[in-house]
This record gives sequence, structure tokens and C-alpha cells, in this order.
Amino acid sequence: MLKEKPLILIANDDSIYSKGIKVLTEIMSEMGEVVVVAPDSHQSGMGHAITLGSPLRVTKTNDFGPNIASYKCSGTPADCVKFGKHYILKGRKIDLVVSGINHGSNASISVLYSGTMSAAIEAAMEGIPAIGFSLCDYGNDADFSHCHDFVIKIAQQVLEHGLPTGLTLNVNFPAKTAEGIKGIRVAKQANAVYRESFEQRKDPYGQPYYWMDGDLENIDLNNGTDLDFLAENFATIVPVKYDLTDYTALENMSHWDFN
Amino acid sequence: MLKEKPLILIANDDSIYSKGIKVLTEIMSEMGEVVVVAPDSHQSGMGHAITLGSPLRVTKTNDFGPNIASYKCSGTPADCVKFGKHYILKGRKIDLVVSGINHGSNASISVLYSGTMSAAIEAAMEGIPAIGFSLCDYGNDADFSHCHDFVIKIAQQVLEHGLPTGLTLNVNFPAKTAEGIKGIRVAKQANAVYRESFEQRKDPYGQPYYWMDGDLENIDLNNGTDLDFLAENFATIVPVKYDLTDYTALENMSHWDFN
Repeated sequence: MLKEKPLILIANDDSIYSKGIKVLTEIMSEMGEVVVVAPDSHQSGMGHAITLGSPLRVTKTNDFGPNIASYKCSGTPADCVKFGKHYILKGRKIDLVVSGINHGSNASISVLYSGTMSAAIEAAMEGIPAIGFSLCDYGNDADFSHCHDFVIKIAQQVLEHGLPTGLTLNVNFPAKTAEGIKGIRVAKQANAVYRESFEQRKDPYGQPYYWMDGDLENIDLNNGTDLDFLAENFATIVPVKYDLTDYTALENMSHWDFN
Repeated sequence: MLKEKPLILIANDDSIYSKGIKVLTEIMSEMGEVVVVAPDSHQSGMGHAITLGSPLRVTKTNDFGPNIASYKCSGTPADCVKFGKHYILKGRKIDLVVSGINHGSNASISVLYSGTMSAAIEAAMEGIPAIGFSLCDYGNDADFSHCHDFVIKIAQQVLEHGLPTGLTLNVNFPAKTAEGIKGIRVAKQANAVYRESFEQRKDPYGQPYYWMDGDLENIDLNNGTDLDFLAENFATIVPVKYDLTDYTALENMSHWDFN
């Protein structure tokens, strides 16, 4: 049974000024009471970083109109969720945390580098059902319109049924095409490798600096992965857990000899 | 069969100036050819962040004497491993990546926030056997002497037998006591929760800022976890994988109705 007005906390990594979080906030406002806590600058690729050793600045904003409480935070996506839960919404039960909609894919191993997903995973670690949403389009003006109904469907499922402890959903949408999204597929995280290179340049003072560049190579083809289904124009959901223990290895390592 | 002189890349998150990486480099020099690529400043709590949108600075140093190639890097621990593999050691086969020894525990859910472990996990993602080492003592002058033999034993096992694809080891040592380390236990990542709070203070201009503080609460007692064994003075090894897919949930979610 749904609460009359579920309490939904929204975060992201592209900053409070991105189009993706505006779209997500509009959609979530149809479903419940929304509070936004998002970074005040780009935090892409921040992984599960948190701010240690320096304090946070947090400021109330009006970016989402007078009816939606919103805050910009100097910290990381994970910091935003912590601050939202333990300070802004202290004492209240948060029914759902949603993160995104990210400008760019967080499928496959990108989940590990993703600030968007770290906000969702942080929520799971705090015992709150959470979903990270990403669109496979990096454009600042990306078209999110084809995602609307799917965001609603997935969020409704989670609000109605909850999620098992420790679980988070990593949802990716294909970029908008004439064909539209074919449907939803629950999939495993594709194994892939970033083929990376560093280019040395010289600054105006003759000192070297290095730009990283890389392409994701899927090494897990035709295996029911998120990358496979995204390539076929499906939206994908990877159920993600933060218990990193490899239980198969845990058994196999019993024969190791450390003496 | 061990190579005559395995090639070992060393990274960490406490910076190239920390005691822990000096200790680890000394130990690894007994075992092979060592190259150090480490952050030029503290990167604790950086999780699996990587540097996107700005370039890296990397400088050769002499911090480990004339016989050990070492580089300080303006990036994150994961950046250090990427730069070590794809630029400094480009074209050479790295036999082992070790990260640490961290000043402070990376047991339980701390693995997700850990820059030390992200360096090791990054190596695994690049197909290199890797180990993250941490000591449950945050002191800058922490005593690492009781870890020496265990670091050697574990690294030797990995050099001799390798690690399955996708696997990394998260090794934690108890702080030094008169009793010493009782032995090694392979364990699962304890489930735990950070009980966090934010304290508001005012800067000299009257503007608020917030300090995060938190205590780890173990909610997974007597379950064969790393926290259990560390409390009994064992060194612990958690086999860690970067495939975050929850395969149980993947099966269970087949009944979800998205239509």
C-alpha cells in the first residue's frame, strides 16, 4: 500500500543545474513529496567519494520553484545523500532515493566510477530503497522525454514493493531514437575494459600535463548484459549490491596455504 | 613458477609521503622490481573516483632512493593505477599491483569509500592481480612492523597462483598489540552502518558550514565477517569483485510487472 505522499530524496552527480535532475524532479513531483540535495558543481566520475577532512557548504536554493525544497551542496553525490538523510530530513522516513537522470551511460563497469550510482548505493547502505537513472546521451541538452513513463513505472514498483536489503537498481535508458524504447530488461553488468591512453601536452611554461582518454570495450558479448540490451534499444535494470564479497572465491580460498 | 623478478606497481591513497607506502615499498622490493605511482596529496575517502574534465600532473620523485622508480600524481588512487599501466609501464606486463598500506581500516563497508581499495579494484578491472593492504590504526606514525611477514605471504601466494579474473583481495591487519597477529582468516565483508551526524558551525563571516562525523556500527555480528576476525586479532582477507550484479535479485526480479 502506497503512502498518500511518499517522501522522495533526489540527488545526482551532474550538479543541481543539469537538465537531467530537473526532468527527474518534475517526474517525481507527480508521485510524492520531493526534496532535492545535489552537488553545486559537476561531480562526474567521483565514484563513491565522500568528503573527509574538510567541511561541507550547503545552501537552500529556488531552482525547482517554491513548492520543492532544494539544496546545493559542495560535496560529492554520496555526501548529498548523507546530508539529506542525517541533517535536512533527520527524523523523517525517506521512502525512496532517486539519482540522476545522468547525462551519459552508467552501464557495465561505469557503475564503479559513477557518482550517480554512488548516491543510490549510499542510500541502500543507509537502508533506503534507491534507484540510479542514466541516459546514454552525454549532451547537456539531451532529450529525456522518452524516459518519462519508464521512470514512473520503475519508481512505482519500488515504492509499492520496496527492495531487498542491500539492493539498488542501476537503470540505463538508450538515447532517444525514432524507434523509441522497446521495453525493460533486467540484466547483469557487462564485463568490459576501458582501453585508455594518456596524451602528454606542455603548458605555457613548458611543463608537462596529461589528458586521459579511453573507450569502453565490451568483452562480454551476447551474454544478457546491460550493454547487449541497450544496443537493442531496451531500457536496462541491473540489480546492484554493495556487498563486494566474492562468495565463490571465499570458498575456493580455503585451500590457500599462508604458513 | 615465479618470474625471476616480477614487476610490481604500488599505489595508495594516503599520498606518496605516507609511512604506509614506504613500508610497503620496502617489503615489495624484497620480492621484485617495484614502481611507485601515488597521489601527491591525501586521497582518503575518494572511493573509485577518477579525474575527468581536467588533466593530470605527474612528476618523477626520489622519495624511495635511486633504485626505485617513483612518481607522484595529482589524481586519485584509481588514476595512479591507470597512469602507471597505460603510460609509465606501457607495453610491459605488470605481475602485481599492491595498494597501501593504508593508515586505517578498510574492512566492512569502508571498502566502498576506500581509495586504497579502488586502486586495487582498478587493477583488477585492467586484468592485473591486485591486493589492497590496510592497518587498523589511523596514526601517521602507526607501527606496521607486525604486518611484514603477512604481506610477504599473501603477495607470494598471489604471485605464484594469480587471482581469478575480476577478483581483488582486501587485506586488513589489526593494530599492533603485544599479542601479535594470530593468523590469517578469509572472511566476508561485514554489513555495517555509519551512524552519522552533521555539526553546523559558523565561519568568521557568519556563514554556516557542516562537519560530518560518524561511527561504524557492525550489524552483522558472529557471522564470520572481517570485523569479527579483526576484533579477535586475526589479519583478514576479503575476496572482492567488481561485478556488482546481485544474481539472486536478477532471478527474483523476473516476476516484476513493468506494463
